[in-house]
Amino acid sequence: MKKQMTVIEYVLGQIKELGVTDAFGVPGDFVYPVCDAVMDDEQIRWIGCSNELNASYAADGYARTRGASVLVTTYGAGELCTFGGLAGAHAENSKVIALAGMPGLREQDGKSRYHHMVGDTEPRYEVFVDMIRPLTAGENSAVVITPENCVYETQRVLAAMKYYSKPIYMAFPRDVPNQPVVFPEHEKKVPLANVKSNQATLLKVVNEIFVRLNNAKQTCVLPGYTLRRYGLVDSALGFIEKTGLPFALPNQDRGVLPMQHPNYIGGYDGHWTGWADPAVTDWVEECDCIVALATENHDFNNGFHTLGFDRSALIKINPHSTLIGDQVFENVEMADVLAHLTEAFKEGIAQGCPELASGEVAIGLPTGKPDDVIDYEPLYERLQQFIKKDDIVVSDTAMASMCFSARANLPEGVELEAQTAWGAIGWGTAALLGNCIAEPDRRCIIVCGEGGHQMTATEMGTFERYGVKPIYIVVNNGGYFFERITNRFPDEDYNDLANWNYPELPKAFGCNWLSRQVTNLGELDEALGMASEADTGVYIEVIVPADQLAQGADFVFRATGQHFEQDGRTWETRKSTTNRK
Amino acid sequence: MKKQMTVIEYVLGQIKELGVTDAFGVPGDFVYPVCDAVMDDEQIRWIGCSNELNASYAADGYARTRGASVLVTTYGAGELCTFGGLAGAHAENSKVIALAGMPGLREQDGKSRYHHMVGDTEPRYEVFVDMIRPLTAGENSAVVITPENCVYETQRVLAAMKYYSKPIYMAFPRDVPNQPVVFPEHEKKVPLANVKSNQATLLKVVNEIFVRLNNAKQTCVLPGYTLRRYGLVDSALGFIEKTGLPFALPNQDRGVLPMQHPNYIGGYDGHWTGWADPAVTDWVEECDCIVALATENHDFNNGFHTLGFDRSALIKINPHSTLIGDQVFENVEMADVLAHLTEAFKEGIAQGCPELASGEVAIGLPTGKPDDVIDYEPLYERLQQFIKKDDIVVSDTAMASMCFSARANLPEGVELEAQTAWGAIGWGTAALLGNCIAEPDRRCIIVCGEGGHQMTATEMGTFERYGVKPIYIVVNNGGYFFERITNRFPDEDYNDLANWNYPELPKAFGCNWLSRQVTNLGELDEALGMASEADTGVYIEVIVPADQLAQGADFVFRATGQHFEQDGRTWETRKSTTNRK
Repeated sequence: MKKQMTVIEYVLGQIKELGVTDAFGVPGDFVYPVCDAVMDDEQIRWIGCSNELNASYAADGYARTRGASVLVTTYGAGELCTFGGLAGAHAENSKVIALAGMPGLREQDGKSRYHHMVGDTEPRYEVFVDMIRPLTAGENSAVVITPENCVYETQRVLAAMKYYSKPIYMAFPRDVPNQPVVFPEHEKKVPLANVKSNQATLLKVVNEIFVRLNNAKQTCVLPGYTLRRYGLVDSALGFIEKTGLPFALPNQDRGVLPMQHPNYIGGYDGHWTGWADPAVTDWVEECDCIVALATENHDFNNGFHTLGFDRSALIKINPHSTLIGDQVFENVEMADVLAHLTEAFKEGIAQGCPELASGEVAIGLPTGKPDDVIDYEPLYERLQQFIKKDDIVVSDTAMASMCFSARANLPEGVELEAQTAWGAIGWGTAALLGNCIAEPDRRCIIVCGEGGHQMTATEMGTFERYGVKPIYIVVNNGGYFFERITNRFPDEDYNDLANWNYPELPKAFGCNWLSRQVTNLGELDEALGMASEADTGVYIEVIVPADQLAQGADFVFRATGQHFEQDGRTWETRKSTTNRK
Repeated sequence: MKKQMTVIEYVLGQIKELGVTDAFGVPGDFVYPVCDAVMDDEQIRWIGCSNELNASYAADGYARTRGASVLVTTYGAGELCTFGGLAGAHAENSKVIALAGMPGLREQDGKSRYHHMVGDTEPRYEVFVDMIRPLTAGENSAVVITPENCVYETQRVLAAMKYYSKPIYMAFPRDVPNQPVVFPEHEKKVPLANVKSNQATLLKVVNEIFVRLNNAKQTCVLPGYTLRRYGLVDSALGFIEKTGLPFALPNQDRGVLPMQHPNYIGGYDGHWTGWADPAVTDWVEECDCIVALATENHDFNNGFHTLGFDRSALIKINPHSTLIGDQVFENVEMADVLAHLTEAFKEGIAQGCPELASGEVAIGLPTGKPDDVIDYEPLYERLQQFIKKDDIVVSDTAMASMCFSARANLPEGVELEAQTAWGAIGWGTAALLGNCIAEPDRRCIIVCGEGGHQMTATEMGTFERYGVKPIYIVVNNGGYFFERITNRFPDEDYNDLANWNYPELPKAFGCNWLSRQVTNLGELDEALGMASEADTGVYIEVIVPADQLAQGADFVFRATGQHFEQDGRTWETRKSTTNRK
C-alpha cells in the first residue's frame, strides 16, 4: 500500500514547484519533523546556518536570486530571532517562506508550559505567530497548520506571497507534519490566486496612458526593482524598446534594466546631490509625463524626500493597480498593462532619448599611486573596475550602498542586491550566502563596512561547509562610518567598534580562503588581481583611515548637509575635528 | 537660566534609581538622541555590542546580576533583532528596559515612508512597538513616549516591570528625547506602584499556612529562582531557618539558596532521572505539605511533566498571590506572606531535616588518566572542581545546562545563570558580557557547547574592548550534541556544524586572551590550572569526540529514553550507530 502523503510532504511539494531546492535554517526539537522531511526529500538540501537571524538574511538573499526561499526555525527561541530578517524581506518584497515548529496539538490540549515559552497563567502557544502576522503578505499570512487546513492554507498563503511578493509564515505543531494530509472534499476558492485584470478597467487605463504618452512633450520612464520580483523585467524592457522612451534609475533600482542600454539617461534621486546628477534631475523634473514602474517611495529611494517633479505628470504602474495623475485604478495587473501598452504602440514615440549623464556623480577610472593610503574614491574606482559581467554584487547598507553601489556603473547582467529600504547593516554578510547557494556558478562579491560585518560574521564558515566561494571586500574605516558622519559628533564612543583582526577571521571560521589586509592602493590592486584569479573564497580587509572621514562624507553631503544643520552646526564645522566637550 | 529637564534626561534619571550604570546597545540614526543622552550622562556607560540580539542577551545577563538593565536599539532593523532576547527576558523574569528609536512625531505627521520601515500604503510607524507588546510586563508595557505622556508612562511601565519582573519597552520618536519633559499638573495614580497586601487576606493566608505547617507530618520547601528577582532570598532563608524546614531545589532554582545549607536535601525534578535523585524524589512526594516559593512549572523545571506529589499538599507562594490546595488568594504579596509567616513561628517545626542526597546524580571527584580522551563525566568532574566561591557561572542551554549545571554542587555565593525556561542556545556567550560588566570584580565563567557558541561568538571582542576578563569553556563535541541525542537519527546533516578553528577566535576578535585547545584530560587539567592563574580572559576549547554520544546521552536518558520510544526506537537501538538510509 502506498504511504499516504503527509502534511509536510504536501507543503514541501508545493514549495518545490517554485524552484526552491535549498532550505536555510537552524534545527530545534519542536521543528525536527520539518527538518527530517527536508532530509528525506532528495530535491531539497539543508543549509545549516550559524544562527537564525543569519538564516533569515540568507533566505532573503536566496529569494532575491532564485525567486523564493525556505527558512526553517524552531519555536520561540529560534523563530523570534528571524523577525528582523523577515521584516527586511517584507520591506524589500522578498518571497521568504518561513516554516517554524511549535508544541504539538496534543501538547497544547494539555495546557502545559514547555521550554521556549514565556510564563503565562494560560499558555499562549500562538503568541509568536500572532506577533509576526502584521509583517506577512497581506498582513494575514501567518498560519498554524493542521492536517485539515493544510491544503487550503498552504495554497492561500503561497498565493498571497506571490501576489504581494512578501514573506509568509507557517507554524507546525510538532505532531502535525507527519500526519496524513487531509484533502478537502470540496475545493474552496483560494483568494489572490490567478488574479486577472478587469478588462474594461484595463482598456481604460491603457488607453489613457497611450493618449498621455502620445501627447506628452517629454517623457521619462522610472523602472523599479520590483519588476524583478514580479518577473516583468523583460516586459518593461519591451515597452521601453517599442516606445523608444528614455529611462532613469532611482537608487534602489539600479541595474534592474541594463545601464548599457542606449535609452538609459542616468540615475534619478531627486535633489540628493550625493547621487543625483543635476543634468538628469533637471531633465526628469521638466518632463510632463513620468511613467514609474512600481518604484518605491522611501527616503533612501526618493533622495530624502526631494523628488521635485510635477505630481500631475506621474503615471505609476503598480503590481496590481495604476495611478494616473490623481486617479487610482484598481484591478489592473502590471503584467497586463505593460503588455497591452507595448502592443498599442505600432511605432516608437518621437521624443527621442537625450544624452544626459554628465558623469558628475559617476565613479571614474582608477586614480592615485601605489603608496597612497586608501581613500574612499580611489577604492570605489577600483571596485567599479573589479565588477564584471554577470557578477552578483551584494552591497551592504550604509557606506557600500550609499557611496559605492548607488553610483556604480553596473556591467551587463550584473545583479546588484542592497537592502536599500530596510537598511539593516550586517544583512549582506549573511544574505550573500543565499545568493551564492542560489547561483553557485556566478561570481558573488560583497562590499561591506566592518561595523555591519561584525554583526553577522559567524556565517562565513557556512560558505566553506557548503563549498561556495564568495569574495568579501570588508572596508575597515575605524568604526561606524555612516553614523560618524550623521550623528552629533564624529567621535562619540558609540561610533567605535571592538578592534578585530579581520584577516584572521576566515581561518578561525574554518575557511581556506585567500585572506589579505591592504593598507595602500598598490596592495589593494594586487589583492583584487589575486581575487580575480583565485579558485577559493577571498577575503580582503581594506583599511581606510578613520580620519578620511571628510573625504567620505563630503561626497555624500557635499550639497545638502541637512542632517547637521538641525543642530545649528554644519558639516564644515565638524567634519575633521573633535569638538566634543 | 537652568536648562529644562528633557524627556530622555527624565527617563534616564528614573532608570538610574534602579542602580543601572551601563547601557547595552547598537546605535542608529533614529536613536541618536538616546545614545547622545547616554554619552552626556556621566553615571551611565555605553556598552556597544556587535549586534542587537547579542546586546539584548547581554542586557538580560546584566539585569540578572544587577537587578535591571538598559538596552538601546534603533528603529525596525535594530529593534526587531532583540525580540528573541526580550522574549527570553520575559520567560526568565529579567528586568530589561528597552529604549528604541523611531521616526519623529513631525516626520510621522508627514505620512512619509522612511528607511527601516516596511512598505505600506498607509505607514504603520508603531507596528514594531505593537508587535513586542504581548511580551512586555503585563502585556501592556510597550509605549511610545511623548513629552506629555513621559512622566506618567515612564512611571507606569517601570512599576509594571518591578511588579511582574518582566521587560518593558519605550519607543522614542526621534524629535522627542531632547524636548523638555512636561510635568503633569495633577499626578495620576500609577497602577502597580507600591502594591500592598490586603491585610485581611494576608492574615487569612498566613494563618492557613501556619496551621497546615503545624499539622503536617512531613514538609518540604521548594524555593524558586524568582526569589532573587524580587529581592526575597534572605526572607526565604529566614523562613527556612526559623522553621527548620528542609528544602529541595528544582533544576532552574539551583543555588538560589545555598546548597551548603544544613536544611538542603537535594535536587527535586520529579521523575526525570537525569537529574532526580530517587531518594529525594520519593521523600518529597511523600510529603503532606509542600511549600513552593514562586517556582516555575515548565518541562525543563518539572522533570518533563513528571512531578508526582499530591496536588492538595501544595502551598504555592507566588509574588502577588498564594495558592493553598485548590484555593487561590489574590492581593497577598510574597514579601508580606514570608515575613508574617516567619514571625508567626516562635520556634522551629519539629519535623527535622532528613539526610537524603544519595549522590546518585551528583558530579563526583575527578576520574580518568591524563592521556584519556575527554568524556563528558570526567569533564563535568573537573568543571565542578574549578568553580569557586562567589563565581558567576553562566551555563548555556542544552549540554551545559542539562548535564552539567543541573547536577553541579555550587559553592557558597556562586551565582548560576542558565536560560532554563526559554532555552535559546547561544544566549550564554553574549549574556556573559552583561554579568561581567555588572560585576567586574567577580570571576565570570561560561560553559557552553560549540553549536550555541557559533550563534553569538561575535560578542567576544566586546569583552576586550571594555576590559573585562571572562573564562570561556567551549565544549566542541562535533555538532549539536543535544539534538543528536534527541532527534530522529544521530547522524542527520542538520546536527552538523561548520568546522571552526575555535582557539583562533579570541585573537581574530582582538582579544589578548589565553587560548587553548585540549584533547585529553591532562591538557584539560593544565588549561584549567592556567585559567585559575590568568590575569587575562581565558578561552578553552574542550574536544569531546562526537562518538562519545552514548556516554553523554546515557546519562541524561538512562531511565526514560522517552523522546525515542515515540518513533518505535529506543535509545539502545540507535545511540552508537548510524542507521539512516
